[in-house]
Amino acid sequence: MAKETAAERLDVTPHEGTHDHAGHHLCMPEESRKRAARRLAIARGHLESIRRSLEDPDVYCVDVLRQLKAVQGALDGAASVVLRGHLEAHVATAATRGDEKELVDELMEVFKYT
Amino acid sequence: MAKETAAERLDVTPHEGTHDHAGHHLCMPEESRKRAARRLAIARGHLESIRRSLEDPDVYCVDVLRQLKAVQGALDGAASVVLRGHLEAHVATAATRGDEKELVDELMEVFKYT
Amino acid sequence: MAKETAAERLDVTPHEGTHDHAGHHLCMPEESRKRAARRLAIARGHLESIRRSLEDPDVYCVDVLRQLKAVQGALDGAASVVLRGHLEAHVATAATRGDEKELVDELMEVFKYT
Amino acid sequence: MAKETAAERLDVTPHEGTHDHAGHHLCMPEESRKRAARRLAIARGHLESIRRSLEDPDVYCVDVLRQLKAVQGALDGAASVVLRGHLEAHVATAATRGDEKELVDELMEVFKYT
Repeated sequence: MAKETAAERLDVTPHEGTHDHAGHHLCMPEESRKRAARRLAIARGHLESIRRSLEDPDVYCVDVLRQLKAVQGALDGAASVVLRGHLEAHVATAATRGDEKELVDELMEVFKYT
Repeated sequence: MAKETAAERLDVTPHEGTHDHAGHHLCMPEESRKRAARRLAIARGHLESIRRSLEDPDVYCVDVLRQLKAVQGALDGAASVVLRGHLEAHVATAATRGDEKELVDELMEVFKYT
Repeated sequence: MAKETAAERLDVTPHEGTHDHAGHHLCMPEESRKRAARRLAIARGHLESIRRSLEDPDVYCVDVLRQLKAVQGALDGAASVVLRGHLEAHVATAATRGDEKELVDELMEVFKYT
Repeated sequence: MAKETAAERLDVTPHEGTHDHAGHHLCMPEESRKRAARRLAIARGHLESIRRSLEDPDVYCVDVLRQLKAVQGALDGAASVVLRGHLEAHVATAATRGDEKELVDELMEVFKYT
């Protein structure tokens, strides 16, 4: 996985948004990043069209609920792209770096599990 | 509920997005419509900032997942505004119009319940 | 809807589990009650078989997660039966009794919407 | 993690419910297994009491929905115990065994992500 080489650069200057686990800098696999960005651009367009539809006094509640559900599905799809990249590039390799506990804890928090 | 008066205009020309149930035209209570629109404008801004963050090769997967979860929460909030308006203005009054079956069916479909 | 006649008996002695809204006693349509009970009996059996599978030291995590997901789906199905009965028998008729606000508030709370 | 020793026994006779990934036998960490079993026993009792409550013609729909929501929360809790054990014992160590792809694929399927 070529992404790992990038993810494990140790000489990176940490800044807001970077993550260092046990001295390793983890960043998102490039392909996940680009695919997720494309999906979010589409979801944003859909969301904007729903917002505009709310300017019409004749808009029907259930149509809005259906459209919102479709956008939620699109965001789930984008999140799944990010999650898969994270599991492959970072979680599955955690034992080789020694940051298992940190990665599992932060993932469980995202899943809202206790 | 003044919204009902608007919702029950019978002389409206049906077009895409309008809904006629048992001869009544139902539209969204104005306050729900405006509150939902404001929430969607905020969610759209948040979504755009997540999309931009994906241009940074150092962005961390879990930060993106957290931000996406926050936007999903905002969309849930917008949907709840729309749903409450719908329950109050249309579902709770269905027996007075006679379109109970249609309203319950379409709502159950939105809830993805069988 | 014959259930409504039962639901609106005013002479019932209130006890734990009964609900009186604006002086009306609302109870669950009998068919929903029986269908939901059957689904719960099946879900309980499934849950018990998952619990027993956890006595086997060779059980695999992902198999347990898949089984739990199936039970969750069965409970969603039971909840949908109850929700549909409630919408038809109580929410859609709320304006005829005058307890719209109470019914919508308690339903929104169940949906965890704000 | 002592569980790993058990999880990686190679001499186990495969049977229904066991999982072999790249020649390794993965089983559930014992502590997760016992904690999940206890939670499921409690959830089963709760589910049975809801089922019994449905024998009462006066049971109120929204009370049943609230109880079902509580059981769903308990099952989410049990699933989180299993998931955490799986992430720690199997996913975080996948790169050391070489079964990353298989583990990530089956996990993404459980999450219902595409």
